[in-house]
Amino acid sequence: MKISLTPHHDGSPRYVPRLPSALGETVRLRVRVPRSSPYAGVALRWVTDGEAAAETATVVAEDESDTWYEAQLPFENPVTRYRFVLLRADGGFDWLNGSGVHSYDPPDTFDFALTRFGTPPQWARAGVVYQIFPDRFARSADADARPVPAWAQPQPWDAEPAARGHLTSRQFYGGDLRGIEEHLDHLAELGVGTVYLTPVFPARSCHRYDAASFDEVDPLLGGDEALASLSAALHERGMRLVGDLTTNHTGDAHEWFTAARADARSVEAGYYLWRSHPDDYVSWLGVPSLPKLDWSSPELRKRFADGADSVVARWLQPPVSLDGWRIDVANMTGRHRDTDLAHDVARTVRGTMEAVRPDGLVVGELMHDGTADLTGDGWHAGMNYAGFTRPVWTWLAAPDNGVGYLGMPVTIPRRSGEDSARAMREFSAMVPWQVATSQWNSLDSHDTPRLLTLLRDEALVEVAVGLQMTYPGTPVVYAGDEWGLQGETGEHGRVPMPWDDPARRDPRLHELYRELIALRNDHPALQEGGMRWLLVSQDALAYLREDESESLLVLAARAEWEGAELPADLPGLDSAVLLRGGPDLQRDGTAVRLPGTGPALSVWRLR
Amino acid sequence: MKISLTPHHDGSPRYVPRLPSALGETVRLRVRVPRSSPYAGVALRWVTDGEAAAETATVVAEDESDTWYEAQLPFENPVTRYRFVLLRADGGFDWLNGSGVHSYDPPDTFDFALTRFGTPPQWARAGVVYQIFPDRFARSADADARPVPAWAQPQPWDAEPAARGHLTSRQFYGGDLRGIEEHLDHLAELGVGTVYLTPVFPARSCHRYDAASFDEVDPLLGGDEALASLSAALHERGMRLVGDLTTNHTGDAHEWFTAARADARSVEAGYYLWRSHPDDYVSWLGVPSLPKLDWSSPELRKRFADGADSVVARWLQPPVSLDGWRIDVANMTGRHRDTDLAHDVARTVRGTMEAVRPDGLVVGELMHDGTADLTGDGWHAGMNYAGFTRPVWTWLAAPDNGVGYLGMPVTIPRRSGEDSARAMREFSAMVPWQVATSQWNSLDSHDTPRLLTLLRDEALVEVAVGLQMTYPGTPVVYAGDEWGLQGETGEHGRVPMPWDDPARRDPRLHELYRELIALRNDHPALQEGGMRWLLVSQDALAYLREDESESLLVLAARAEWEGAELPADLPGLDSAVLLRGGPDLQRDGTAVRLPGTGPALSVWRLR
Repeated sequence: MKISLTPHHDGSPRYVPRLPSALGETVRLRVRVPRSSPYAGVALRWVTDGEAAAETATVVAEDESDTWYEAQLPFENPVTRYRFVLLRADGGFDWLNGSGVHSYDPPDTFDFALTRFGTPPQWARAGVVYQIFPDRFARSADADARPVPAWAQPQPWDAEPAARGHLTSRQFYGGDLRGIEEHLDHLAELGVGTVYLTPVFPARSCHRYDAASFDEVDPLLGGDEALASLSAALHERGMRLVGDLTTNHTGDAHEWFTAARADARSVEAGYYLWRSHPDDYVSWLGVPSLPKLDWSSPELRKRFADGADSVVARWLQPPVSLDGWRIDVANMTGRHRDTDLAHDVARTVRGTMEAVRPDGLVVGELMHDGTADLTGDGWHAGMNYAGFTRPVWTWLAAPDNGVGYLGMPVTIPRRSGEDSARAMREFSAMVPWQVATSQWNSLDSHDTPRLLTLLRDEALVEVAVGLQMTYPGTPVVYAGDEWGLQGETGEHGRVPMPWDDPARRDPRLHELYRELIALRNDHPALQEGGMRWLLVSQDALAYLREDESESLLVLAARAEWEGAELPADLPGLDSAVLLRGGPDLQRDGTAVRLPGTGPALSVWRLR
Repeated sequence: MKISLTPHHDGSPRYVPRLPSALGETVRLRVRVPRSSPYAGVALRWVTDGEAAAETATVVAEDESDTWYEAQLPFENPVTRYRFVLLRADGGFDWLNGSGVHSYDPPDTFDFALTRFGTPPQWARAGVVYQIFPDRFARSADADARPVPAWAQPQPWDAEPAARGHLTSRQFYGGDLRGIEEHLDHLAELGVGTVYLTPVFPARSCHRYDAASFDEVDPLLGGDEALASLSAALHERGMRLVGDLTTNHTGDAHEWFTAARADARSVEAGYYLWRSHPDDYVSWLGVPSLPKLDWSSPELRKRFADGADSVVARWLQPPVSLDGWRIDVANMTGRHRDTDLAHDVARTVRGTMEAVRPDGLVVGELMHDGTADLTGDGWHAGMNYAGFTRPVWTWLAAPDNGVGYLGMPVTIPRRSGEDSARAMREFSAMVPWQVATSQWNSLDSHDTPRLLTLLRDEALVEVAVGLQMTYPGTPVVYAGDEWGLQGETGEHGRVPMPWDDPARRDPRLHELYRELIALRNDHPALQEGGMRWLLVSQDALAYLREDESESLLVLAARAEWEGAELPADLPGLDSAVLLRGGPDLQRDGTAVRLPGTGPALSVWRLR
């Protein structure tokens, strides 16, 4: 196999030197066209006010490998889409859009997008996120003194969580916020930048997605003071803290819902969707304990999301000073039948955040294709199940894994590298570059099976985590993955951290996470750099992450494969240095080959 | 080459027996799975309120070739999208969406769509449309008596129109509405069902897209009476009449714009977008003679589109009684910078039409990817340049045709059948089935080069027109194509009809159009039937159009090709009858082959 370079553009600064800030500006766009490719010219096509227009690009530079073309985009709409025409030297042309080079005339779906909505906060992209499920992370000495609530079934810390059934939400291990604070050294040593906590409000379940109030932190977790203390401790270490807010629903024990049921004429009654008051109401997937909120209520909007006194704003300010929110069920929020207020809610939440916390982050939970909600003016980014988690799973999952595929009546399929990369490219292309590089890329979460359970092979876990730490987006590590915790469902994987049981911790995985997180932390190109696919094949994927200062080559192989000869005109090939993994590139005369070893995850610095 | 059958679903009644009419209904959906395919089961996946859900489908029938599965879709949102899971007998699964069967996990872009917005009028799908550019179709004796306006450069009827330059819009041939009425026998003989007239309002150009009024028909065309007379004559023959309305802009001589410029405080001043009154205003692509309308003006909305007294409504009612509107520059209408009222305008126009004319049709001009404007509650359909015209052009265009590609700085490329069919499938998948089958499929228009100029080969014209008459959507024949008129640009192709010059009329093409239109008129399956791709290859395309009563097999070949063996389990293969084209299917023992002749357009009746 011999790799050829293809023309390339993405939203990183080498190709878009200055993002627009206002309509009416002209944006310089650059494309690199390898001289070894069959193209003799470039034009830019864009859409303004619904009408396509095009203009020839001009050559602005020639380097060792590429001709660089530049064109001027009139930035006239808040989301302006564009693509390039690649003029073939032999006549005819191909298109270059966000999903690659195409010989047919595609819909606009995968066109590049520029927006005027700015870039999500830099810290959010720079630091690896560590997800903590508070009931299961760590239990401080304070916890013993707290009464066990009526809904809870107390469990010993080392008991295996149930995988299914109604008990899963009642199994109570009693982790608390002080417990987390006591283990920040673990996070720091791992190299984590941001802690994301699933909900901390009072509820009647161990997951707390059925909030009984948004006005106080659950006393079972230590209350407001414990959260403020954790936040301060994290900030002191230069780390960030993101909370979890359910904008789609509350619990049926919520003070708003109690008031709403008691009086159909109450303000709170307008917060919910009634078929017939007080017993028949819309709820999340028909689960009666999770009544759905009605975002057409101006009072709800104000109380929850709009302005400095809202729930959204309150916790972003002292004394707790969260750095952002992960929004639960963002995909359904404000959506019911013929009402769709999802974008409106997202913009309101974002606007409130920006007013009280200009560097705040808001990330939506989007379980399938959430690209339509990620144009950039609402959620900064989403949980990237569709564009990262699933494609990595389907490439690396053990055959016959028997693990259910996120609500589908199938087990996780094993797909080719071509199939997985296609999904990654298409989902990435559908959102603006700033969003793509801010997506939350998980390999698992409290809602999914554990990675190791799915892959069954630590060598493949290395490939998966390697992809996670090098692919555009923010890596989200689910607490316990660094020790190889397992679980065949989301509930089953909510395993308490075995602090006192070294036998249940995998030191090799721990070291692997530490090293790969350090690799990402050490190389801004992995956090902000351009993304250029080099190789997409059944068993191996390779890409470049590049910024002005360096160029990194990432090779992921799930199995032994044939290897491939790198393009002779790949810049920096002569000076390539293996940063991690291996074996090294094979040099044979002038030819340089990617090694066919696998499973393997290797990174080279080319420049 | 051997063709295999793949699982199939589309929006036709065999697969969707009853369309939903209200939210909350359950919709039965059927999929056929050939027993020769590697699938052992089916599940349905749909999205409600932004959340994906899935359920296993059940077997409801077995026939000679297929297992038929059925699933129940909860129709909960005005546009509800779904796809199928095809469970492989060997484990794993593929997806079936509107663009075909996929082994990767695709975005929702090409999912099937159900809407509650009903189906465009049946007449609009059933009858072939004939497009007339009034200045160039026919000149009645009345025309000689009319004074030539100051803007016009009168031309002899047989003069070749200019291809480029500012004169193109001033070349005046003096065709009129009575001229059209005098030639309705020609249309009837051709088999046309609907006449579409480009604008007839007074203007200062031959194309009249720069309306000076919407309140009267241009006296140069014979005025209101002539249009009413033409309309009545068409209706008497059972034919329909569609007008052309510019919702995006008016001419600068329009009475509204004159009033607007004269007084910044006038009501009409609010109809336009001013940078600085009175001289600096927004216009169509910066052309000052075409000032753009501001649809945020409630007065404009009322006067133009909302209610029985509006421009939209007036001409749909007696005495003129148009049957519908083609909306010029629909893609830009209501769009400017950060204002996007396009859907709102479309819904208003549609609503007004439905009130005064429940069986009216409204079709938007959408020059590139207009799928986002075709969810079904606004424009019934669009001019399908992206999903039909371009793909057919690129498959059949002469190499080195030298003809510009609709505003792109390239000539029309020659693409493979795979590339062209992919574009057709993807654009079709992005709109609901009712829209896909109502799209206006042109092979050229007053805005494009003429088909024959582009293909340069009558045998290829037969292939193109064959596709047009058999592919889902409403064929739109541009007056003069049936005689082989030519033109290298839109302006150049506005050739007056050579009624008096038989030497300039191609009788073979005329007969071809007559026959192929008759074929479509005679077979409801070509108007309303399901669409199933059978073969997509470099030089040949084949598909089935099927309804309850018959199954037609269409084969289009642009050149000699290798031929292909049809699937043995294709229903009706034994009884296939050649309806048109040929040579016939080749039978060799039990094998039945599509012939490799080309260029060719053949249609068989299988059932």
